[in-house]
Amino acid sequence: MKPLILITNDDTVHAKGLTVLVDAVREFGDIVVMSSDVNGSGMSHAITSAVPLRTRTVHEEEGLWIYSCNGTPVDCFDLGAGYFCPRRPNLVLSGINNGSNASVNVVYSGTMGAVIEASMKGFDAIGFSLLNYDLEADFSLCVPIVKNIVADVLENGLPQGTSLNVNIPDMPYEQIKGIRVCRQSQAFWADSHEKRIDPIGRPYWWLTGEFICDDRQPGSDIHALDNGYVSVVPTHFDYTDYNNIKDMQKRFNQ
Amino acid sequence: MKPLILITNDDTVHAKGLTVLVDAVREFGDIVVMSSDVNGSGMSHAITSAVPLRTRTVHEEEGLWIYSCNGTPVDCFDLGAGYFCPRRPNLVLSGINNGSNASVNVVYSGTMGAVIEASMKGFDAIGFSLLNYDLEADFSLCVPIVKNIVADVLENGLPQGTSLNVNIPDMPYEQIKGIRVCRQSQAFWADSHEKRIDPIGRPYWWLTGEFICDDRQPGSDIHALDNGYVSVVPTHFDYTDYNNIKDMQKRFNQ
Repeated sequence: MKPLILITNDDTVHAKGLTVLVDAVREFGDIVVMSSDVNGSGMSHAITSAVPLRTRTVHEEEGLWIYSCNGTPVDCFDLGAGYFCPRRPNLVLSGINNGSNASVNVVYSGTMGAVIEASMKGFDAIGFSLLNYDLEADFSLCVPIVKNIVADVLENGLPQGTSLNVNIPDMPYEQIKGIRVCRQSQAFWADSHEKRIDPIGRPYWWLTGEFICDDRQPGSDIHALDNGYVSVVPTHFDYTDYNNIKDMQKRFNQ
Repeated sequence: MKPLILITNDDTVHAKGLTVLVDAVREFGDIVVMSSDVNGSGMSHAITSAVPLRTRTVHEEEGLWIYSCNGTPVDCFDLGAGYFCPRRPNLVLSGINNGSNASVNVVYSGTMGAVIEASMKGFDAIGFSLLNYDLEADFSLCVPIVKNIVADVLENGLPQGTSLNVNIPDMPYEQIKGIRVCRQSQAFWADSHEKRIDPIGRPYWWLTGEFICDDRQPGSDIHALDNGYVSVVPTHFDYTDYNNIKDMQKRFNQ
């Protein structure tokens, strides 16, 4: 039986990056897409509990089934894997995201939220992002990179609990120098909100921010991307800071 | 000048656990609360970008300022620290959450989303959760534990980038055996959604799930809690799976 690939994203079912991803991997197997009708950028690992989820059939043909729902990217994975796949998926993909999920952006990312959820539930999963925020970005440069990594993971799998966060620099494919497996650069977003005044004189705040990254050493994802490489960060969901356990035990154990 | 403590949570500004936390730490300094009007349980590290944020003054007196907004827990921290604190907070607290954020629940937790955001931006931050999901739970047993840990962190600080995920077992305070600094247990939530049929015959899905945890070894947070200890997991935001970087480099670097 053909491999089954479940695909989601955080830019809605209408996103160009999703279409390019689906087209790129159709040759590898049957495809189920579960995406959202609402933008899930910045939704991280959020799950919907206050309201029920509804689904919609967007497209059905042999080997390609596309559905959407009103959930977050994590909800999309859960519903897709739980109810809309004809068999257990061999691989879960998310993207191609419109913008970077490198460095600490992974923490906020809906694209990677879905990937990490899949990984928590025992699936091999990969998130793809292109470093271009233009809705009309040319995602086609990602296609050979996607095919390359997907073929490897379908054949060889991933370690239990490890997923891949793949970021692709925005440059012509021929200029990309290669692929580098990296660690996540440390960074943060400064000045998170801009204060404005509405037409009746009341304040409101809108999300903004400046990406501050001093961690551009070799081995980091930002260094790889700055130098024209695709970055691949093996990602897990153990938030324990093992380096500080012993010191904290001395202070707090009682 | 007195220490300033910024407090948020994910159970809304009306939550009992928030009130208990505020009362528990007032003796340590001035308090600013920024919480949400809408429940942020399960919002993880989500940030609001599609709509502007509005704020509301709930209560103001010397040494205690309480505000609310329409944002996620992470938004609450960002707005609170950025616009509503009279000076830089010495400590950021979140909770007391109505239910467990131990093990992989940290990944979904709005309570811990705010804590991790604060930590990413260089603040000492602690999340508190009580293992009781009843809205009328007796949070008072948490008070001496909160005071103990807050006093230590105000005096000694935390390592850069490390926050604390504190979970408290639901039992009379006298029966709690102590505090254990732990690692996060590995686990997952199975059967994520329940399918139902609405009154006009159409399907909908509602979040549910069963917590599956086979990782109850000594040293894990679930083991500590099972045995009547408060668990404290030092938590960071580097998702890199360092154990698998070398193997992945052999496979993917090119």
